[in-house]
Amino acid sequence: MLKHEDNERLVRVGKGTPGGELFRRYWMPACLSEELPERDGAPLRVRLLGEDLIAFRDTKGDVGLVDAYCPHRRAPMYFGRNEECGLRCAYHGWKFDKHGDCVDMPSEPMGSPLKDRVKMFAYPTYEAGGVVWTYMGPKEKMPATPDYEWMRAPASHAYISKTYEECNYLQALEGGLDTAHSSFVHNISVGSKNALRNADTAPRLDVNVTDYGYNYISTRDAGDNEKYIRVYQYVMPTQQMRGAVAKWDKNGGADDPHKVPKIDGHIWAPIDDEHTWVYNWTYAIDKSISYTSQDFEDFETFAGRGKDATIPGTYFPIRNKANDYLVDRKVQKTQTYTGITGINTQDFALQEGMGAIVDRSREFLGSTDKAIITMRRLMLEATRQVEEGAAPRGSDPASYRDIRPYDAVVPADMDWRVAFKDLLVAKW
Amino acid sequence: MLKHEDNERLVRVGKGTPGGELFRRYWMPACLSEELPERDGAPLRVRLLGEDLIAFRDTKGDVGLVDAYCPHRRAPMYFGRNEECGLRCAYHGWKFDKHGDCVDMPSEPMGSPLKDRVKMFAYPTYEAGGVVWTYMGPKEKMPATPDYEWMRAPASHAYISKTYEECNYLQALEGGLDTAHSSFVHNISVGSKNALRNADTAPRLDVNVTDYGYNYISTRDAGDNEKYIRVYQYVMPTQQMRGAVAKWDKNGGADDPHKVPKIDGHIWAPIDDEHTWVYNWTYAIDKSISYTSQDFEDFETFAGRGKDATIPGTYFPIRNKANDYLVDRKVQKTQTYTGITGINTQDFALQEGMGAIVDRSREFLGSTDKAIITMRRLMLEATRQVEEGAAPRGSDPASYRDIRPYDAVVPADMDWRVAFKDLLVAKW
Amino acid sequence: MLKHEDNERLVRVGKGTPGGELFRRYWMPACLSEELPERDGAPLRVRLLGEDLIAFRDTKGDVGLVDAYCPHRRAPMYFGRNEECGLRCAYHGWKFDKHGDCVDMPSEPMGSPLKDRVKMFAYPTYEAGGVVWTYMGPKEKMPATPDYEWMRAPASHAYISKTYEECNYLQALEGGLDTAHSSFVHNISVGSKNALRNADTAPRLDVNVTDYGYNYISTRDAGDNEKYIRVYQYVMPTQQMRGAVAKWDKNGGADDPHKVPKIDGHIWAPIDDEHTWVYNWTYAIDKSISYTSQDFEDFETFAGRGKDATIPGTYFPIRNKANDYLVDRKVQKTQTYTGITGINTQDFALQEGMGAIVDRSREFLGSTDKAIITMRRLMLEATRQVEEGAAPRGSDPASYRDIRPYDAVVPADMDWRVAFKDLLVAKW
Repeated sequence: MLKHEDNERLVRVGKGTPGGELFRRYWMPACLSEELPERDGAPLRVRLLGEDLIAFRDTKGDVGLVDAYCPHRRAPMYFGRNEECGLRCAYHGWKFDKHGDCVDMPSEPMGSPLKDRVKMFAYPTYEAGGVVWTYMGPKEKMPATPDYEWMRAPASHAYISKTYEECNYLQALEGGLDTAHSSFVHNISVGSKNALRNADTAPRLDVNVTDYGYNYISTRDAGDNEKYIRVYQYVMPTQQMRGAVAKWDKNGGADDPHKVPKIDGHIWAPIDDEHTWVYNWTYAIDKSISYTSQDFEDFETFAGRGKDATIPGTYFPIRNKANDYLVDRKVQKTQTYTGITGINTQDFALQEGMGAIVDRSREFLGSTDKAIITMRRLMLEATRQVEEGAAPRGSDPASYRDIRPYDAVVPADMDWRVAFKDLLVAKW
Repeated sequence: MLKHEDNERLVRVGKGTPGGELFRRYWMPACLSEELPERDGAPLRVRLLGEDLIAFRDTKGDVGLVDAYCPHRRAPMYFGRNEECGLRCAYHGWKFDKHGDCVDMPSEPMGSPLKDRVKMFAYPTYEAGGVVWTYMGPKEKMPATPDYEWMRAPASHAYISKTYEECNYLQALEGGLDTAHSSFVHNISVGSKNALRNADTAPRLDVNVTDYGYNYISTRDAGDNEKYIRVYQYVMPTQQMRGAVAKWDKNGGADDPHKVPKIDGHIWAPIDDEHTWVYNWTYAIDKSISYTSQDFEDFETFAGRGKDATIPGTYFPIRNKANDYLVDRKVQKTQTYTGITGINTQDFALQEGMGAIVDRSREFLGSTDKAIITMRRLMLEATRQVEEGAAPRGSDPASYRDIRPYDAVVPADMDWRVAFKDLLVAKW
Repeated sequence: MLKHEDNERLVRVGKGTPGGELFRRYWMPACLSEELPERDGAPLRVRLLGEDLIAFRDTKGDVGLVDAYCPHRRAPMYFGRNEECGLRCAYHGWKFDKHGDCVDMPSEPMGSPLKDRVKMFAYPTYEAGGVVWTYMGPKEKMPATPDYEWMRAPASHAYISKTYEECNYLQALEGGLDTAHSSFVHNISVGSKNALRNADTAPRLDVNVTDYGYNYISTRDAGDNEKYIRVYQYVMPTQQMRGAVAKWDKNGGADDPHKVPKIDGHIWAPIDDEHTWVYNWTYAIDKSISYTSQDFEDFETFAGRGKDATIPGTYFPIRNKANDYLVDRKVQKTQTYTGITGINTQDFALQEGMGAIVDRSREFLGSTDKAIITMRRLMLEATRQVEEGAAPRGSDPASYRDIRPYDAVVPADMDWRVAFKDLLVAKW
């Protein structure tokens, strides 16, 4: 459980709140590159950390991320015209470039000094890994641009998507960091003891705090004198990295046809206190593994976020809160613990089903919640670091650029620290 | 009119409010039995007195009514699996029985003491009369289980349904206790003086306070040297009982083809401050009267809550606030005072049309409001009884188990107290 | 920009607020006459200045405008029966006339004194110009009934409509008073210098305060040794009057096929703080100009508020906030600055797109905002006049009854004050 005031400290993301200021010390995903497909194309509404913004790809291909409202009379820049390296407000024609500088003010007399005095609110952007990143904090505190391994994998070996989630980011992140739940939620055959994660439903957790957040190891008995080891990475503030079962896995494929050597994970980007964008990335562990784009789409489908599972033209799941995720009670009775189709859909049912913001003062935590408890402690600590003017943990790319997660079944007496040593190091 | 603070005292039903604590001293309807049709079937969302709960029928057929959220990490129990006398949270497999005891905790090491320390919030249930009842107050104050006559009538002679109403319970209850309105609202022919309740639109009211609430007698001139007597029962906190015109009625059938000897009524169960479930029960006055199930369905249709008038798969009326109850202004001009089809639909139009919660400080009451004024006084008095630790009026089944209402046209000089003496006593 | 407290002073329209009390010193449009098409017809819901009211046309043809709720038990008068010069509440049959007097109380004994003591809240009405007007302030402060020139033009030469706008009235009014925006928003060909308002995008403004509000003159260079003069009228609190380009216009028709001698304008009537009815009126400048009803409908279509652009049976635009006004980004790229069809639809996109209520403390005003700044100053001043008990500017019809606007291209050296002298005087 968390004291009410600590819960508030974490879940609120607006400007001026402790949690909001913490997020404003990291580069955050603002949108996918694919949402701004062409130069001088339609502006895009972006809501991030409770702020309403407009993104546009200018004539040179650079992305501007500016105030949603014109500084003149607060007209909506969404209806602005994206032209010649700037966004022109449709109301009086004032035009701003990606830096927020006013480059044309046709409603004022030629040479008016007003043009130089008016400035539109603009955030810096950085585009890489299929994502437009932004930094919304004070300029003098801006860290180096993000550099996760998945951003370096070539497009042929990587995939990125996003999904809308109707709840606070923290309960979503907590689901991501929680290995124990996969023993029930995720397509586990009811009563079966065959599947890896079902054979042992009470994993032992070992959390190692690092400069970027932590890695944590869950250990499950896997029978036959073997154990199943998962090494997750948590990169602050809201990223999780997770491996798939490695080649020496003997029986992990039983409940997941896609258990091939890949790495995947999420970043949870708070839209506001009650809504979250989940960025989903996947990549091959090295050049020797090749996936077709169909393979990546199959991963997405398996995760419940494929094109068929998404409302066309949006990133909203078709199976959602309003339709109870199309839960099939017969399937729940006879096949899986949830009766819901799609790995992430199963997560969403539980996370969104908690309500917009969980009251953590009413929890009753167990031993499998160790990773979650540590994350909360690190995040709370980081809000205090920010208040003291320091750079929070995980904001420096040097701290995480060389890491990756891993996941494997190994002999029961193997010391995974030795066996995995080289496997936890980035290869891209 | 009611002082603002007294209105607030009555209309608020949440935990800790005077009205809310009053309701928490009575057994309340939580759902219909038909909503939990099978053992180990789908859990059901129940919202009652502002609390979110989950009902489930377990393997033995008993009904559990528990917190909507798992005590572990607040995952939604709605997506839980109903299995072997318990509801298993789909998140980490914690399983709770109908008492709220944790009976399995697979994510913890075998033998962990946590299992015995965790308790899920659970309310006692009692199933009878086609209704699952619950008591949401302190254990030591729990009254005996409900025992209204309609609950004792055999299924062959009784019918129960429920309807969703979009307003506070009090204005709904007031509509139910108000005999005077039936002279206008309910299918009365415009300008006609033929119908019983229209012949005399200003009934005289006589309210007798009892141990369970009150009975009240309305008297109307019925012409031809006759009078029309209606004896209603009000059982606290929110039940109303009403007879149909008895056999000796000469012309009451003119505006109601279903005027046969039956008794019916409602219980208004507050969902929260602004929404109410209306439970509708009907039964035959004794074994000599037999109804087919079609007869009962015809009553429902006449009341405007039949299957054709309800959105399939729900208890929501098709004629509702959003479509102005499909009012037909031509019918209103030429046939009835409302132009709305269905007795209860007419009630809902007026009750919901008042807004979510009526501001009773702006009322101007008349002589036909005597029953309503008395109900308010008894309810206010009862909130104070509860504050003083006493059992409120009407919570003891002994106070009401033998009562029933009546309704008849009698000779003008007949003393109804004598004529009705035996007719106001339960026969089932 | 406006200080936060001054913004609040203007945007709030509820009873007891400074802005609300100001509006309650003017006759305001309550509905169109066409909304009450027949005597004893269906009552109409009217929400004005945050108050819920019911309008009905009685047996004599007079319009009553009364409380939406019956004074007895607050039943909705919307479901009342409009009959014999009164509205009868369907609940207990209490009947009220247009003055709010209770004329029948059938639920009380004959001769009860209650009938004379109960009074329904009623506002005076005045019907003219196709509009039902009302005055919602103190009786002793009631000004003479409205008398704008457009109300005097015969039905054959005038047209009135209304449109629902989803934002505070003030940003809508500001759009109406703002000539400069028409150089971009309104069907202006991208990059073209041909159209009158595009040739010079920085008009010079000259505002003359009057007893009714102000007139203001915008001057644009029109090339060929000509200038384009627009004389707008602002009549307090929320009316704007605007001429079309007069016959001597040489090239104004290029971007507007309907540039014929007519006068049009709007009144913005606040529904509540966040919603507004826009009344749109149009009339011919004199008897010599004749329009068919098709002509008027064509004006409406051009304005984006024609029948095809409106959700049937309502005054809600089909192109609205929920569908981004069906903006066509290709049209925006190649033809017009907005890509949106319909003059007023373009306005709505910008005005509603600002959000429900603009935060004017974040503005950065320019020289083209002179008229808007003056309007705000006059409105603030008027709220103080009302607080001091005085009649606010523009409430006396004598102040505005003889005015009209004008719009023309004239030789560059012409003194418009001389040329327009007689043209700014009402002819109807």
